[in-house]
Amino acid sequence: MIYLPLGGAGEIGMNAYVYGYGPKGKERLILVDLGVTFPDMDGSPGVDLIFPDLAWLQERRDRLEAIFITHAHEDHIGAIGQFWSNLQVPVYCRKFTARIAERKLEEQGLSPDAVHVVERYPARTGAGPFEVSFLPVSHSIPEAAGLIIDTPAGRVVHTGDFKLDRSPVLGEPFDPDLWSEIAGQGVKALVCDSTNVYSRHAGRSEATVMPAITDLVAGAPGMVVATTFASNIARLKTLAEAGQAAGRSVCLLGRAMQRMLRTGVETGIVTDFPPVIDVEDAVSIPRENLMLIVTGSQGERRAASAQLSRGKHLGLTLKEGDLFLFSSKTIPGNERGVIRIMNAFSEMGVDVIDDSMGEYHVSGHANRPDLQEVHRIFRPQMLIPMHGEHRHLREHARLAREGGLAAAVAVNGTMLDLSGPEPEVVDYVETGRVYLDGSRKIGALDGIVRDRIRMALNGVLAIAVLIDEEDEYAAEIYAAVNGLSETGEGGRDLAEEVEDAVSDALSRAKHKLLTDDDAVEAEVRKVARRVASDDIGKKPEVIVQISRFTTAP
Amino acid sequence: MIYLPLGGAGEIGMNAYVYGYGPKGKERLILVDLGVTFPDMDGSPGVDLIFPDLAWLQERRDRLEAIFITHAHEDHIGAIGQFWSNLQVPVYCRKFTARIAERKLEEQGLSPDAVHVVERYPARTGAGPFEVSFLPVSHSIPEAAGLIIDTPAGRVVHTGDFKLDRSPVLGEPFDPDLWSEIAGQGVKALVCDSTNVYSRHAGRSEATVMPAITDLVAGAPGMVVATTFASNIARLKTLAEAGQAAGRSVCLLGRAMQRMLRTGVETGIVTDFPPVIDVEDAVSIPRENLMLIVTGSQGERRAASAQLSRGKHLGLTLKEGDLFLFSSKTIPGNERGVIRIMNAFSEMGVDVIDDSMGEYHVSGHANRPDLQEVHRIFRPQMLIPMHGEHRHLREHARLAREGGLAAAVAVNGTMLDLSGPEPEVVDYVETGRVYLDGSRKIGALDGIVRDRIRMALNGVLAIAVLIDEEDEYAAEIYAAVNGLSETGEGGRDLAEEVEDAVSDALSRAKHKLLTDDDAVEAEVRKVARRVASDDIGKKPEVIVQISRFTTAP
Repeated sequence: MIYLPLGGAGEIGMNAYVYGYGPKGKERLILVDLGVTFPDMDGSPGVDLIFPDLAWLQERRDRLEAIFITHAHEDHIGAIGQFWSNLQVPVYCRKFTARIAERKLEEQGLSPDAVHVVERYPARTGAGPFEVSFLPVSHSIPEAAGLIIDTPAGRVVHTGDFKLDRSPVLGEPFDPDLWSEIAGQGVKALVCDSTNVYSRHAGRSEATVMPAITDLVAGAPGMVVATTFASNIARLKTLAEAGQAAGRSVCLLGRAMQRMLRTGVETGIVTDFPPVIDVEDAVSIPRENLMLIVTGSQGERRAASAQLSRGKHLGLTLKEGDLFLFSSKTIPGNERGVIRIMNAFSEMGVDVIDDSMGEYHVSGHANRPDLQEVHRIFRPQMLIPMHGEHRHLREHARLAREGGLAAAVAVNGTMLDLSGPEPEVVDYVETGRVYLDGSRKIGALDGIVRDRIRMALNGVLAIAVLIDEEDEYAAEIYAAVNGLSETGEGGRDLAEEVEDAVSDALSRAKHKLLTDDDAVEAEVRKVARRVASDDIGKKPEVIVQISRFTTAP
Repeated sequence: MIYLPLGGAGEIGMNAYVYGYGPKGKERLILVDLGVTFPDMDGSPGVDLIFPDLAWLQERRDRLEAIFITHAHEDHIGAIGQFWSNLQVPVYCRKFTARIAERKLEEQGLSPDAVHVVERYPARTGAGPFEVSFLPVSHSIPEAAGLIIDTPAGRVVHTGDFKLDRSPVLGEPFDPDLWSEIAGQGVKALVCDSTNVYSRHAGRSEATVMPAITDLVAGAPGMVVATTFASNIARLKTLAEAGQAAGRSVCLLGRAMQRMLRTGVETGIVTDFPPVIDVEDAVSIPRENLMLIVTGSQGERRAASAQLSRGKHLGLTLKEGDLFLFSSKTIPGNERGVIRIMNAFSEMGVDVIDDSMGEYHVSGHANRPDLQEVHRIFRPQMLIPMHGEHRHLREHARLAREGGLAAAVAVNGTMLDLSGPEPEVVDYVETGRVYLDGSRKIGALDGIVRDRIRMALNGVLAIAVLIDEEDEYAAEIYAAVNGLSETGEGGRDLAEEVEDAVSDALSRAKHKLLTDDDAVEAEVRKVARRVASDDIGKKPEVIVQISRFTTAP
């Protein structure tokens, strides 16, 4: 029995875990989750989405039995639409998740029929040598599930993202008896969420934020606007109920949020959500009677929170005396965007409240003591930490060993054999990232994005060189600057200086050089960078275009 | 009496505050601090440093009496070298700060004679109608000072960056009697650091981190490496003493840190720092007897911590069982860089400890209760919050009003008259940011950096168009792609497709269009973007170069 993470192990994002059972090299395979991660300006400017590199799996497509999706967060389901055609196997998940998966296939022009709704444990789904059952867990989205994966070599519990919540507001509370029952049949390996291994206190229940939110909304004099993750329907419900309790009409802004709630209602998961009004009606309601729940808790520039921070949005404007609540945490890397919004609201006189005091948000992941409790419940032969950066996986493995469990840190591409008494590394598989860039998938390491980063850091000099084919002389040089100071010290024009210097250099160059495009390009680049370095202190990226023309009739 | 922030109010960074006294429009001026802020990939890729726009002050240079620098952090002193020539007035600061200021002038080829060392309160420096005295405050760098600015209109206390520390490890402890004495003569306005207004508990002393650090180092089995801000010499001392107490040789890595310590020793401020060894000697010391103190607490790619995280650095390599301590906090926006280093160390088997539990770092800024204490000590007629984002200034003003003080939020460019019983806005001055980009200063809003960001997001198509002057036809089109997928759906070559489409369009274009460079450029851009959008789903930046040649002899 093998375990091979292709994404999600050594990073937080783009989860994709392969399990295999069978003779070495002929294992039958299942894939657990198929998520994305999000680009950023530092490392992947202009990229739309980041996928795990599934080349290894695609080459072994004939051995793949099925895809199981634990829950509908983008880092677990986001790549299903873009990659299903490459895999073409059934997709199994619970009802809410299924609805999201179906939509993702439809968005790519695919039939949603590949998606199969499965019931929770003890229902089982066969997939080759695997029997898989969905164990309800609490997380920050409806119908999250761990997977109980039975094989002839034993049982694996793959937790997915989870926390232990005895009062989760929405969905099934943590049921220690049920978990013990599952453990009772013996667990070979626990493959376990590691996100919050550094959080030393036991996690708090989703229900604990209700009193503080209710008080806050009740005491607010003006309009109340709250943001949270669109898929956290339990939180949406808490926020909406707080609004309702304060006698406010509640309006949801942001398509992602409206769609999530609608999916929750359509699948029968959300039954008693307070009434919500349309934005068209919201504009005519006195601000002290209105509560907005909006997208954009991470400072996303196009989400409703950012739009409101820039002024009027859909007829609504915040002002002095209004309240804006971040019922969320800021994911590392998003700080600047969130802070920008906070300050924009501050300039409007809006009071901004965030979770810095820990009152208005709880995490969806199990903290260190909760992880220890789960280790104790399942008493697995081995623990495999997943869903975490390297430091989280390593710390989680250490925690498990302290508790007497075998453990191994396996980052993306590390194939473990789980059959023996301890996990054993049996192979390293090439993995990586694939970028969705416009409509193209490009490799993270193929240099395209590297070139963009270089242009952003260094600016661009584009130089067109005209070479007369007959006499083989460089007739004209045209330089254009983009993203650079146009003038150097003393007001000299950079483009002109470059044109003159390149012209000089080519006129002095040997006849033979002009016949060789590569040599011309290298010479032009060298001269142009030297001039730019002297004039403006930068070494730009140089794009050289050589045009050869003939003067003879 | 006027107050005009040109930088630092409405942001954290590039502090520059103007005070004026005299008839309206003829006030004599002083400048307090002249700092920089640091660029980032999101908003200012490729930029070297960010300065406040001093145009207003430069135009009134004849009215400027002096520059006072509160302390030697880059956001208070970093622009002195680049802008002194534009201002040319004496620079006053305490000894340690003066040494740093002198170096900055020398680096720009200027004489350090403009810098004057002043003694602490009660010593006074006259500057036109101003009498200025340096009040020692605790911060996270030696010899930080607040300024007591006396004018005929009354006394202003400008706190600079400060905390209330009764045991600061280095420098003068907080002296409430002295502060009360200063307050006793009446304070018109308190212009006050707002950074930590949201930190609800009283700040902790620098000395409080000593026991935890000492224990941690004493218990470490392998090499110990600690990083903190290079200028926090008190912390360097605590770390070095912890190393010494554990019987370790101590070595400082990183030029900024070595220079800071040297400056501290040369100025006689640091007298009992434990002995440090050179890196050449460190390599031969057993790892359990060695402690490194290194630069790079913010994940800077070229600093010692990042170098060590990438492997061997100056002959030193970390490995399993070693310990790396971040005795620092991560400044918002630097999270990704810090996390990258943490994970790199984790991969080496190095244990990484940070301040997430609040044991190994304390802030250098006054927290909310400390601010309230300072309000009470000085009992000013009005409070002007500075050194903070808008939300910090606004919250600080609110806090002051709760305590019965008049207060006003004045962001960069807001000129306040402090003469009356309440601060009054009398003018708005155009302010902004100037970028140091290579060797050039460019305006933040002049489009250069915007173009670089666009290239990073959209990629570049450079298109050279050859037009025959005689017959006025487009002879050749050359397209080059940079930072874009070279092939579209079906493997079509993007550059070729663009060349064909542009060629087509220009051959069909009216004769008149070809005579007009702007029209040709617009047409080429339109066609190229359409093709790219169809082929690869992106709309690149297009650089068009038109070459006109003549076939006639």
